[in-house]
Amino acid sequence: MSGNWQRFCNHLYVCDSVGLRLDTSRMRAGGDLLDRLDGPMHDAYDAMQQLERGAIANPDENRMVGHYWLRAPDLAPDSEIRGEIADCFARIRSFAEDVQTGRIASPTGEPFKNLLLIGIGGSALGPQLVDDALDSGAGPMRTWFMDNTDPDGIDRTLAQIGRDLGRTLAVVISKSGGTKETRNGMLEATRAYTKAGLSFPRFAVAVTGEGSALFEQAQREEWLDTFPMWDWVGGRTSVTSAVGLLPASLQGYDVTALLDGAREMDAVTRRRDTAQNPAALLALMWYDAAEKRGLRDMVVIPYKDRLVLFSRYLQQLVMESLGKQKDLDGKTVNQGLTVYGNKGSTDQHAYVQQLREGLHNFFVTFIEVLRDRSGSSIEVEPQVTSGDYLHGFLLGTREALYDNGRESITITIDEVSAYSLGALIALFERAVGFFASLVNINAYHQPGVEAGKKAAGRVIALQAEVCKALAARPGEKMSADQIAAACGREDEAEWVYMILEHLAANPDRGVERVGSAHPAKAHYRWLGVTGPLA
Amino acid sequence: MSGNWQRFCNHLYVCDSVGLRLDTSRMRAGGDLLDRLDGPMHDAYDAMQQLERGAIANPDENRMVGHYWLRAPDLAPDSEIRGEIADCFARIRSFAEDVQTGRIASPTGEPFKNLLLIGIGGSALGPQLVDDALDSGAGPMRTWFMDNTDPDGIDRTLAQIGRDLGRTLAVVISKSGGTKETRNGMLEATRAYTKAGLSFPRFAVAVTGEGSALFEQAQREEWLDTFPMWDWVGGRTSVTSAVGLLPASLQGYDVTALLDGAREMDAVTRRRDTAQNPAALLALMWYDAAEKRGLRDMVVIPYKDRLVLFSRYLQQLVMESLGKQKDLDGKTVNQGLTVYGNKGSTDQHAYVQQLREGLHNFFVTFIEVLRDRSGSSIEVEPQVTSGDYLHGFLLGTREALYDNGRESITITIDEVSAYSLGALIALFERAVGFFASLVNINAYHQPGVEAGKKAAGRVIALQAEVCKALAARPGEKMSADQIAAACGREDEAEWVYMILEHLAANPDRGVERVGSAHPAKAHYRWLGVTGPLA
Repeated sequence: MSGNWQRFCNHLYVCDSVGLRLDTSRMRAGGDLLDRLDGPMHDAYDAMQQLERGAIANPDENRMVGHYWLRAPDLAPDSEIRGEIADCFARIRSFAEDVQTGRIASPTGEPFKNLLLIGIGGSALGPQLVDDALDSGAGPMRTWFMDNTDPDGIDRTLAQIGRDLGRTLAVVISKSGGTKETRNGMLEATRAYTKAGLSFPRFAVAVTGEGSALFEQAQREEWLDTFPMWDWVGGRTSVTSAVGLLPASLQGYDVTALLDGAREMDAVTRRRDTAQNPAALLALMWYDAAEKRGLRDMVVIPYKDRLVLFSRYLQQLVMESLGKQKDLDGKTVNQGLTVYGNKGSTDQHAYVQQLREGLHNFFVTFIEVLRDRSGSSIEVEPQVTSGDYLHGFLLGTREALYDNGRESITITIDEVSAYSLGALIALFERAVGFFASLVNINAYHQPGVEAGKKAAGRVIALQAEVCKALAARPGEKMSADQIAAACGREDEAEWVYMILEHLAANPDRGVERVGSAHPAKAHYRWLGVTGPLA
Repeated sequence: MSGNWQRFCNHLYVCDSVGLRLDTSRMRAGGDLLDRLDGPMHDAYDAMQQLERGAIANPDENRMVGHYWLRAPDLAPDSEIRGEIADCFARIRSFAEDVQTGRIASPTGEPFKNLLLIGIGGSALGPQLVDDALDSGAGPMRTWFMDNTDPDGIDRTLAQIGRDLGRTLAVVISKSGGTKETRNGMLEATRAYTKAGLSFPRFAVAVTGEGSALFEQAQREEWLDTFPMWDWVGGRTSVTSAVGLLPASLQGYDVTALLDGAREMDAVTRRRDTAQNPAALLALMWYDAAEKRGLRDMVVIPYKDRLVLFSRYLQQLVMESLGKQKDLDGKTVNQGLTVYGNKGSTDQHAYVQQLREGLHNFFVTFIEVLRDRSGSSIEVEPQVTSGDYLHGFLLGTREALYDNGRESITITIDEVSAYSLGALIALFERAVGFFASLVNINAYHQPGVEAGKKAAGRVIALQAEVCKALAARPGEKMSADQIAAACGREDEAEWVYMILEHLAANPDRGVERVGSAHPAKAHYRWLGVTGPLA
């Protein structure tokens, strides 16, 4: 590592106001990168400025992209939005206070002690990150998440809550109010409350767009409260809206500091002096390392247990924003930037072997947290602490990778706090926006997720036809392709087989498989449905 | 999807004896792949056979690779090993029974109700996977993990255990007995027990190699018990040794079924008929999709909450085994296969946008679990359940990806049980071994992790020099490069700066930074150490 000191000094961006550093000295990018991309970077600044002023940045969905306003309502393009933000945050504060002081309590009169958050994707991962990053292990509310439509997973969460369901506040989060996973989670939760003799609406809060199906239901059933999700906030950038702030407030985290950190980082990353703009620096590094088109995966390794979900949060933020087929001119580009990682030093015992010696298909983003713990440390060797080892492993791995020509970025924060978490989130949000500008794509839509949902809808519809065809011939044994033919869906015998296998594995569905599971041999028979599905 | 039925029937491998299916119909590999690679595949069978007969498969470390014997001790190369396995498993059974019945209890006389597992990498991820996959939410013991040397993470785990520490059995797992993260975790745990007035050895069990430092300590301090880790079991394939079986037995999981599933899969994957050998099929698909050298990432998406850690388990198993610089002939090959993923359908709301539309740099491995839940389901729509949606999303995403030319493998199991988990683990273990043979690398060592550890050791040593140089000039303000020079380590000013910043962020370390954090401007001063480190 000799001779690197000057390069390190030159390539270490220090942001004293936020308390964050960004070290790009171990990236191969030459000093001319900033000059070379000065033009495109200034276009990116212009695009971002327009976005922040309320341009329709997501033409597919004809909506503005305004998560930055959440941190600085004065910047919102009109007084209506400013008022809505202020009103929403005031209502969150007051609601959380009412829950904490017991003014809003379980119908039994006992204060709420658990939070059950029902949501998925952008409506779950942000709150999960905040909770895991800020949880002291002894906060006012224990939190559970239903972030899928897996019946077994739902049952397990409910089993873990157990008898405390009567003291569990349910927060249902869905912007559209129509996300099936969330709707299903809500219905399953409702059944559990009902079985326990409890009325779900007395325990429920909604976070959703005005007028959505969820909104209407919450109004009709008089849920405890409803908080808005605006169409100008995207799911993956919603953590500083009610989506993140309501749970965080209920959990007693310092949401003001979270917003402060994000706002300060927003201010810093608005600078047009690229060398002083950490989000711009990140975007340029990605652009260079990935050779403009995702040729390197980004491995994110925070050396701090409570940031283990940050990699997964970035996986969503980055990949859903940047993984696009077309650019803004309609040209097929198949862009993207793959993100994975968990935490250090744990990951050193998992895949750093490959990073150091194997495929050179990545660059690393280390996250260094300087403060080891809130109290004082013991010695694990004379004058050496556990935290020294954690720190040493980070530096050692950074060095071992560099020795083999593997690049890395290191982001340093003093400690994991609501403030620094807000700053980190805002840093990557804007880096993603800049990168999208550099490669000329729309970072704010997700057209590719529709195809899978639509195909799933066709599977669900086909299942009804399959059941009908089977039930029409009770007792008769038929093969998957015969059943497909009976439905007039010869082309979909494969799905019919997979549907039948799923039904046959669940005794309450009334379908029995006879014989081998091999698709060319398996036969199915209708037994009739009993139980709640009858 | 029309016209796929015949291809599906031809490419669906059904293993009735294990209850597992492997669908490779959505991979692009042509029917000639098996023929083309018949020779190399038979070499792979030969290599595996030698391995199982006790060949020195890991010449670097001069050891055998025998995790298969754990499931079928009769296959072990000598009676000594057979006896050791039988003895170890019998002792585990009896120890777990003694804990469960209270014959082995906390010194206070109360039965143990928590398990604290201290280990990292291969000594933690297997037990974490087993626990998360099999936990009903109401098992006999609640389990906590210390899988890092993060002081804050350790503090949080201890805070969560709280007053129950006196009823917490600690299992310290380290094959070499010298892994620093685990050693540090053990020392930190010891402090916590001591502070609570408890004697750690009365709560502690070791799993380690005979004669290791940990082994000696456990003997000397008369820990509750010690279980062996043999040099012929690698960390990342140790889950069916005491590493996985001791925690699983204490948690009340069916370890016999876990071993049965693995043994049955081992038997199936010993077949030399490649079309009937799911591990061989997997290895060939990886080989073809990744164009022999990791050109595609493997995205693992189990559609089942309790398998969320399986992707991470495979990340370790695959990347540490296959990410190698040299092949067996010493040629530089930089092999590997990148693995990431969490769970479906949750991941559809995170990165499936990129998978469908963006970079084509991956193939997916879906894991389908047919059984939705142990009880019966409610309707979320007429005749439709939450589980139908989960299943529909899997099929829909598989289809949406295929429509855009993205490949996928689907592995189907009836349910997540100890048996099927054992089978899945064994399936991938052997697939990794076959793939390694196909690309002519050693899957059983990890030479690349040493460099980072050694560099970390140099950081720790340098820190002592830095502190000494600072302490020699009390009150004097010095810059990082001045201190580096004072240590005679001009070349390492960068590390010196990073070490100083870490020390200065921790008040108990006696170092103060004066002025800006910029490396060219920052100065440091020795304040002297107080507290436990003094």
